[in-house]
Amino acid sequence: MTQRILVLPGDGIGPEITRQARRVLDACREAGLDIDIEEAPVGGAEIDRSGVPLAPETLEKAKGADAILLGAVGGPKWDTMPDIANRPEKGLLALRKELNLFGNLRPALLYQQLVEASSLKPEVVSGLDIMIVRELTGGIYFGQPRGRETREDGTRYGYNTYVYDEHEIRRIGRVAFEMAQKRGKKLCSVDKANVLEVTILWRDIMNELAPEYPDVELSHMYVDNAAMQLVRAPKQFDVIVTGNMFGDILSDAAAMLTGSIGMLPSASLNESGQGMFEPCHGSAPDIAGQGLANPLATILSVAMMLRYSLGAPDMAARIEQAVGAVLDQNLRTADIAYEGTRQVTTEEMGDAVLAAF
Amino acid sequence: MTQRILVLPGDGIGPEITRQARRVLDACREAGLDIDIEEAPVGGAEIDRSGVPLAPETLEKAKGADAILLGAVGGPKWDTMPDIANRPEKGLLALRKELNLFGNLRPALLYQQLVEASSLKPEVVSGLDIMIVRELTGGIYFGQPRGRETREDGTRYGYNTYVYDEHEIRRIGRVAFEMAQKRGKKLCSVDKANVLEVTILWRDIMNELAPEYPDVELSHMYVDNAAMQLVRAPKQFDVIVTGNMFGDILSDAAAMLTGSIGMLPSASLNESGQGMFEPCHGSAPDIAGQGLANPLATILSVAMMLRYSLGAPDMAARIEQAVGAVLDQNLRTADIAYEGTRQVTTEEMGDAVLAAF
Ligand SMILES: CC(C)[C@H](C(=O)O)[C@@H](O)C(=O)O
Ligand SMILES: CC(C)[C@H](C(=O)O)[C@@H](O)C(=O)O
Repeated sequence: MTQRILVLPGDGIGPEITRQARRVLDACREAGLDIDIEEAPVGGAEIDRSGVPLAPETLEKAKGADAILLGAVGGPKWDTMPDIANRPEKGLLALRKELNLFGNLRPALLYQQLVEASSLKPEVVSGLDIMIVRELTGGIYFGQPRGRETREDGTRYGYNTYVYDEHEIRRIGRVAFEMAQKRGKKLCSVDKANVLEVTILWRDIMNELAPEYPDVELSHMYVDNAAMQLVRAPKQFDVIVTGNMFGDILSDAAAMLTGSIGMLPSASLNESGQGMFEPCHGSAPDIAGQGLANPLATILSVAMMLRYSLGAPDMAARIEQAVGAVLDQNLRTADIAYEGTRQVTTEEMGDAVLAAF
Repeated sequence: MTQRILVLPGDGIGPEITRQARRVLDACREAGLDIDIEEAPVGGAEIDRSGVPLAPETLEKAKGADAILLGAVGGPKWDTMPDIANRPEKGLLALRKELNLFGNLRPALLYQQLVEASSLKPEVVSGLDIMIVRELTGGIYFGQPRGRETREDGTRYGYNTYVYDEHEIRRIGRVAFEMAQKRGKKLCSVDKANVLEVTILWRDIMNELAPEYPDVELSHMYVDNAAMQLVRAPKQFDVIVTGNMFGDILSDAAAMLTGSIGMLPSASLNESGQGMFEPCHGSAPDIAGQGLANPLATILSVAMMLRYSLGAPDMAARIEQAVGAVLDQNLRTADIAYEGTRQVTTEEMGDAVLAAF
């Protein structure tokens, strides 16, 4: 049966990186993958077109798709929009919420060919391979009540609500425990249980799940310590599981440890295996349209899509091998280029991956 | 007039590091500083004694003191206490709140003698000197409502409230702008204004303050990006201002960049200049009582106390110079020792600082 893929290029470098990823998807189709690809605007591009970051018909298409490939959304052009409910980011948050994509997988993997690109000492990061499992549809990102108001005495105040129930915690916990089972069998749950009640519940539920996964070693760490340990000795981690807000912060820090955030894909999955796949990096408006962007994170997001949503792990492995091969050929986009490597454009990088596929 | 200092050793390594810091305070008194020193238990030590982490009489003493020197609180012994309201950390949080110590100054300063101790490449961190200004008595740490409950259908949930009003934001903003004026004149305000309404207000207030400090260059950064930039290129920052939760996470990451968290002091100040001073590191129960702890962060906290609360900047500078001198003498506690340096105990480090004072 034909599987349906929706490509949402978005803003900034989104269009140029998804263009290269689409070429890889086309190559997969030629190699026998039965897929149908459609494209739609989202984020700032859609605001410019229709006034909202996610059009109702695009949401419908997304719901009907087996998998979504997203470029990136946002940029300074829309940052000053007074109405937060209508900024590019809200399109992304709405997709996550409406499709129930609660399970966000964010690998922080160091490519040995790029060890020099890290700001950390080679011995600290060489071989780094962490998987961050971030809860994506709950927590303070979506908690009610929220808003800005003015008190009777004229004082303005703002508030958000950090809330989780046990079901939300349990289902992301299961994703993380299962991920740990497939990897190094170590799971570190990150919370702030010495201060925040909601994360005491988080810790309780993780502890309750642990006996079901006796082969996984569960530990707990406060978020401030986790931020420190990621800098000090990141290789101590295998799988990290945490809530939406802490996951946002820690996954970006972890990604940056590798020195090659332009290389890192991500997956956001729901309970039926439907997923949205996107690079970890943002829309980089400052370099958009210049052929400088690194398409590899988006191409590797296609590999994650094949593995997690389309049931084509072999094809996924072929893409990953092709990416490894172009790195071995010493080809680099600007973000990961250094002396002795050959700098190529976004499109040339796509060419090289296709040639190695 | 005699100024009153309350020393709260706390738990873990707290007693041994404050012991060395007291010796430095004694030396200051002998050198002419008119102070009176009293000591009291807090945190786990006080729980063991009286059942609560902060005794009412200790709180009264703290209110009456001109400055407080705190070691560290907490440890595994009390981590499993079911009642979060009675854990060691609550003693610390109550002191902050009751004394209105909203302005938390956390320097992340790299000592050139210790550049090798960092997990980052020397060129990335050499010369690093960031000041993080963290709001300490508001935000999600203290927001109401908060708690854990069970819904009618039996589902457990937990919640906390992230709330700020404009006055709270403005007063910490002023501390940060003034700090930037005294330093490199660059202030970066960290928020998550693309998702959290409370931090949109935060950003608005910072922008409203900016015209009063025309010599300071204000910028804004999302917290996930800030965590990345601290890893990638930390020297881009001068002063960072942020809320309680983000400040907890970012200040620990920034401190760890220096590779010598055992060196970093902190100050928590209220509007009348009264302050609590403590090392950035924790109570390190695993090494307590073995003479391994580094007393320098606590000794440097005494220097901050002299500068910010006791009006004795010259004496503060003398302490800081003495600490620089012992590093130049190649003396190191275990946490910062490496080949070619001389490892000393906690007390020997105290001896050396006193000799150089
Ligand atoms: C763009 C923004 C809303 C988003 C988030 O905070 O989740 C991004 O930072 C991410 O991590 O995917
Ligand atoms: C011990 C804990 C409550 C405290 C905090 O989170 O503020 C600590 O981490 C700190 O940063 O001083």
